[in-house]
Parts: sequence; structure tokens; C-alpha cells
Amino acid sequence: MSGAETIAKDANAAFSVLKTLINEERSFALQKIHDSLRAHKDLILESNRIDMKNAADNNLSSSLIKRLDLSNSGKFDSMLQGILDVAKLEDPVGKVTLARQLDEGLNLYRVSAPIGVLLIIFESRPEVIANITALAIKSGNSAILKGGKESYQTFKIMSDIVNKTLQQETKVPEAAVQLIQSREEVGDLLLQDKYIDLVIPRGSNELVRNIKANTKIPVMGHADGICSIYVDDDYDIVKAVRVIVDSKTNYPAGCNAVEQLLLNDKIDDNDIIYMIGALIDAKVTVHVTPEVKSKLTTLDQEYIKDTVEDSFDKEYLSFDISVKFVESVKDAIKHINIHSSKHTESIVTENKERADVFMKGIDSAGVYWNCSTRFADGFRYGFGTEVGISTNKIHARGPVGLEGLMSYQYQLRGDGHIVGEYVGGGGEKEFHHKDL
Amino acid sequence: MSGAETIAKDANAAFSVLKTLINEERSFALQKIHDSLRAHKDLILESNRIDMKNAADNNLSSSLIKRLDLSNSGKFDSMLQGILDVAKLEDPVGKVTLARQLDEGLNLYRVSAPIGVLLIIFESRPEVIANITALAIKSGNSAILKGGKESYQTFKIMSDIVNKTLQQETKVPEAAVQLIQSREEVGDLLLQDKYIDLVIPRGSNELVRNIKANTKIPVMGHADGICSIYVDDDYDIVKAVRVIVDSKTNYPAGCNAVEQLLLNDKIDDNDIIYMIGALIDAKVTVHVTPEVKSKLTTLDQEYIKDTVEDSFDKEYLSFDISVKFVESVKDAIKHINIHSSKHTESIVTENKERADVFMKGIDSAGVYWNCSTRFADGFRYGFGTEVGISTNKIHARGPVGLEGLMSYQYQLRGDGHIVGEYVGGGGEKEFHHKDL
Repeated sequence: MSGAETIAKDANAAFSVLKTLINEERSFALQKIHDSLRAHKDLILESNRIDMKNAADNNLSSSLIKRLDLSNSGKFDSMLQGILDVAKLEDPVGKVTLARQLDEGLNLYRVSAPIGVLLIIFESRPEVIANITALAIKSGNSAILKGGKESYQTFKIMSDIVNKTLQQETKVPEAAVQLIQSREEVGDLLLQDKYIDLVIPRGSNELVRNIKANTKIPVMGHADGICSIYVDDDYDIVKAVRVIVDSKTNYPAGCNAVEQLLLNDKIDDNDIIYMIGALIDAKVTVHVTPEVKSKLTTLDQEYIKDTVEDSFDKEYLSFDISVKFVESVKDAIKHINIHSSKHTESIVTENKERADVFMKGIDSAGVYWNCSTRFADGFRYGFGTEVGISTNKIHARGPVGLEGLMSYQYQLRGDGHIVGEYVGGGGEKEFHHKDL
Repeated sequence: MSGAETIAKDANAAFSVLKTLINEERSFALQKIHDSLRAHKDLILESNRIDMKNAADNNLSSSLIKRLDLSNSGKFDSMLQGILDVAKLEDPVGKVTLARQLDEGLNLYRVSAPIGVLLIIFESRPEVIANITALAIKSGNSAILKGGKESYQTFKIMSDIVNKTLQQETKVPEAAVQLIQSREEVGDLLLQDKYIDLVIPRGSNELVRNIKANTKIPVMGHADGICSIYVDDDYDIVKAVRVIVDSKTNYPAGCNAVEQLLLNDKIDDNDIIYMIGALIDAKVTVHVTPEVKSKLTTLDQEYIKDTVEDSFDKEYLSFDISVKFVESVKDAIKHINIHSSKHTESIVTENKERADVFMKGIDSAGVYWNCSTRFADGFRYGFGTEVGISTNKIHARGPVGLEGLMSYQYQLRGDGHIVGEYVGGGGEKEFHHKDL
């Protein structure tokens, strides 16, 4: 048995036990993890300093080193608080979403249940391991964790503490949370579709694409965030400028930053200049079609470029945006449903009817009216910690919190009932199908 | 552009239109399809007779030929009635499952929405094309259909009628339902992950496995149905025998037939003989471990075989069952979670506590107490038409009706709201996160 197979099989066996625990037992484990991490704060920060020193020795960027730093003001405490916050959430397991009497004494229930074994691959911020551990245990899922190598020492000490605490003080099996270390093992784990139910990659587009290409296990996440804004011809110019500039410049490296601007071709020329001018004032380079370009002769040409073949199929992740005209909201929907990555799209209009057409016609995880695409985020939606943003259309979509880590099961409770006595199975009895 | 790419792209464009239609427009289209199929009954039955004749000429089995026959008593009418039944169902699109005020004038809604483009590969029964067309249009999904070649003439005339009706009498685009004809095209369609959102294969295990191995598109369905029954030591012998015999013999070729029997090792020897004897009386061959075999010396040895290496990892689909002892309900859960295909498992016990442990610990789509595994079926659950049974743990699970063909979207309705003004985005405003 390979190392990866052992890890996956152990995680699966731990899941079988974890699945039977009640909410109090799962939440108690989170409380104990919180207590142990707090008690070992000095030890953890010591390991964290080794990671920081290695990062400095390897000439990593100062922004990355800052992200590694767990001693930053309040970061450790807010990490600990996050664990308690998740512990206090309502139990996501065992929610009944359908209850139906099939016949006298034969009752069907659809009940929420954990998915199983999650393989979570994440970046270097050390506090993420605490978030994900909390979400996994609370939802009754086993987690196999692979963190960025820059935080290795911090991850190592934290996962040792978590495992020891689980084993000594709780009913949650130790193997319910496993940290893996080498990149080779990730490749092998991606082959364990018999034991692993879902892969959640949090990282670069390239990482996600690479994982999707190399596993049969379902992958939850997104490779691209190609978001769009459509400005209708019935618009408020102040709202339009606010939404466009915020969506582009608030954090251009975010997957929810806007990458394409579709302008209704009946918008007043002065307003076009005003909107594009606001982007240029914010140091955004606009990539425009010839029709748009002809309207922009009075603006700083340094920030104006011609669109090229893939201008409407790319994620800039920078101070760049593609701009073109469309004829109508239907035209905008058609363009977006072909070119977007189905993440988040926004319409700017004062016309409710047209907003509704847009929101019904667009095939993306988020469809917005008169607001910034940057709102697509678990914290802003009020989900607390999020494990990622999904552009999948199967299972969880958009920002994914606790609910996205759940599946369901059908429970049927009978008293010796057999199919052979019912219509369709050879007998005469009819089903009641009465909702309870 | 390949033929398959054109088909997939057309289906996707049709989806963009279909998605904007209201329930009345979708249901009206079903009514019109119903009317046209009824008006052309003679033409359809004529094509059906050609399929039947070809089948007879090719020496197909009489049971297959019977399944092809659309002129069978009431079959055509019940097919038509099925379309009207689906039309009358509650609209599955646009159901609000979360409504939350993020801030004054900024409201978040989670709304059910169709998945997109479905590729459905199904067997030869001609009436299935009507069921699936009805479910797809009602749920707002485009469908690409590939039916078994034995019903080709019937499928062809029916899809021609459907397409003509959609085009001439409804707002549903013609390309929302496309029938494809050759097996080569299926292979090419499985590569169209840019345009196709979900593959639903209804057919042999081999077909499903083959499809899963050859596409990046999510596949909803099941390759295996390895179902189990565990008989606890606190059991009612009458219920046990009823449930075991029905689960095995009601329809052994069904994916919900039981394949393994786990007996608590404290069950009385006479009752073991009674249970196994009942199976043997029903002509079932029992594949038993040496410990079980030693109890069966008084039974007809012709029906008793030794278990072999894969006896607890196989789907017999015949009058065969594997039998072994387990020590406890926990032991049974452990065995099942490793060896079952996560379809449906049943416990026979008079002890509610132990039933609850079983139902909580088992990681399968269906978990049953004192009833036959054969109840795992959309009709028996009261879902009306089903598109299949899913052993996936992501998205739909168990029998899949209209609800399983839905995804959801987040709608955010604002009034020029931007992230830059809120905490976490660079500003000071706090989110309300008040459920509406």
C-alpha cells in the first residue's frame, strides 16, 4: 500500500467514526483544539519565526513574509476566536429537508450528512489550517491538508498539537485531520478516488487547472474569475462609475475583480468618456474595440489599448479591463454566457424589469444589480469562514461555507416492509406519498 | 468546428434563452409537445413497427422486443400523461432558499436555477425520450439525447415532432432538445466540457464506467449497486426473512437488489438456518464464509458455495448473495463503508438505538431500517419520473427527479453599493447580515 493510499484509507476509516458523533462531541473537540493551541502559543510562534527566517533567507517578497507572520497584531487571537465561532454555529448534520410517509409505518426522510473525506490544498497563511480544521470537524468530514511549503514549520507544530489533542481529549479520531508534507504525495492522493470524495484547491489558477486535469475526484473551486459589468442605457452615472471603479480597483488580484465592461451602445458619449476617464484616473488601462476607441479621443491615450483576439476571454488580475459595446441586455447576456467563467456578473440599470431579465438569463454563480462584483465573498455574504469560491454548477456554487461541505442521505424507516407487496413490484398495495 | 461542438454550442445558446422563460411558457411547451405526439400517434407507431421488425430480424430477445413496443396496452397514453404530469409540477426554478440583508438596500438571495446543458445517454425504451424531454424543459435545462440504436426510428420521428413543435408553437428554442444518432458523436460530445454541464448515463455498469473514464464533465449516476443488509442480534425473525428475501429476489437485476448479508454472530443457529433456508427455497445460491457454512449442514448443499476473494466487492445481479458474520453494528458499519458502492443499505433490528447508530454511521445514499433495499426508486419515493439513481456524494444523491436537475445562483440587489466602503475592503461600514 502506498503512503498516499494509507493516508486516504485512514482518513476514510476516521470519517466512519466521526460521522456517528453528535454535535456536542464535535464542538467539544473544537473547544479543546482552541485550548491547546492557546496553551502552546509560544511554541507555535517560535516555529513561525523559523518559517519567517527561512523566507527571508530565500529572498521571498515582503508581502508574502507578512502573510506568513502569525505574531502580527491580533492574528493569533482572531485565529483562535475563529475556531470558537465555528464551534458555536448551528449543527449542519442531520437537518431534515424532506419527510414523507410512503405508506403506513414506512417513512422517508432526507437528512443532511457530511460528504466524507476532503483533500484541501491551500496557500501559505498559517491560520488557514485552523479555519479548515474547524470547518471539517464541525461538518463531520475528515480532512487531508496540504499547506504551502513556506509555512511548513508552523503547520507542523500546529497539526501535531491538533492530532495530540484529538487523540487524548476527544472522541474525534486523530486521523480525521492529517497534514501531508511532500508535493509528490499530492499527486498520489489525487489517484485515491476510492477513499477521497472531494478536492478543494485554494491557490493559483494554474494549481487548480493542474489538479482538475489529474484526478477523477470531484474538484470544488475555480480556475478563472472572468467577471463582467453591463451598463444598460437606463443608468445612473454616479452608480455606474462607483460600481465599475470599485469592481476593478478595490483588489485587482481578486477572483471577483471585474475584467470586462459591456456598454450599451446608446449610452451618451459624454458619459462614456466620464466612465472610462474614471478608470484611467485610477491608473487602469482600458483595452477597447475600435467603436469604443473612437469615443475616447479626449482621454489620455497612454492608458488606451486595442483589444486583441482573447481580450474577452482572459483574467487580467491587474489594472486592466476590456471594453466593448453591446446592443441590449439580451446581447450582454449572450456575450457573458459565452465568455465569462461563470463567477460573478453585475448589471447597472435603473430599470427593474431589465435587471430581472439579466439576473434570470445569466448563467453564473453570482448575478448582481447595481453593486460591485467584489461583494462575491463568504465573509461579505455572512458565511463566516469560507473554504473557497466555486464556479462549479454541480453541488456548491459561489462562496462555500459549512453548508457547501454537506451532502444528504435518504433514510427509510419501516417495520418489515417489502416491495413485492406494492404496485410495480408485483403486489397491489398503493403508496400514500403524504408529506409529513 | 466538429459536429459535436456545434451540437453542444447550440444547446448552450438555447439554454441562455430557455433560462429566461417563465414557468407558464415552459409548461405550455410541454402541453404542445403532448398535443403533437398525440396527433401523430399513427405515424409514431408506424416507425415503432419498423424498429420492432428490425429487432426481430436481428434476433433480439423477446423481452427486449417487448420493451421496444410502444403499441403495448396503454403505454403510449401513459407516456403522454407523464408529460402532462411533469407540466403540472410546481416550478422548480427561482425558489428562494436564502434571503439576507447585507446592509441597508443591499440584499442577497440564493435562488434555484437550472444546471445548463445535460447530455443524457439512455437505453432503448422509446417512451424515455418523452419523460426526459419533459423533465429537461420543465427544469429549464437544455438536453442532448442519445438513445439506444434499437429504437432509432421511433426516436427519430418523435424528436422531429418535438423539434418542429418547439420551433413553430413555443418560445422554447428548437435546439433545447437535440437527438444525436451515432456512437462516434458521443465520444466527441464527452470532450465538450466548455458547453456541457452534466452527463447522465442510464444503462449498463460498463457504459457508466466507460463514460466516467472518458470525460471531464461531471457524471451523475452509478456504476455499481452493491447493497447490504445487516441483521442485528435483537431482531424479529419474520421481518428479517421478509426483508432479506424481497431485497434479493423481487428483481435481482436491479441496482437496488441486495448483494451481501451480514449476520450478527450472536444470532441463534436455528434462525440462521431459517433465514438462509428461505433464500435457498427461493433458489438463491448463498456464498458463505467457513464460519457461516458450519451452521448450514442441514440445508441443500447444492445452493451453498464458499466465498472467494472478491465475494464482498461484487454486484451479482442474479440469484446469488454473499453471507458473513460480524460482531456488532459498528463492525457492520465498518464493513459496509469499505465494501458497499454507497447505494442503499438496510438494518434489521428491533433496537431503535442501534438502528440510529447504523443510519448515522453508514455512508450511502440510502440507509434503511427494517425494510427492503428495493424501495430505493424514484417512483416509490414519490418523485414521479426519475432520470436515474446517483451514488455520487456531490450534488444529487439517490433517486433523482426534477430537484436533482437544479443548481442555484446568488443574486445581490444593491443601489450602487461598493466594497471599498466596507470593513475588509478598505472602509469602515459594517455588514448587517440580517436574515429577511
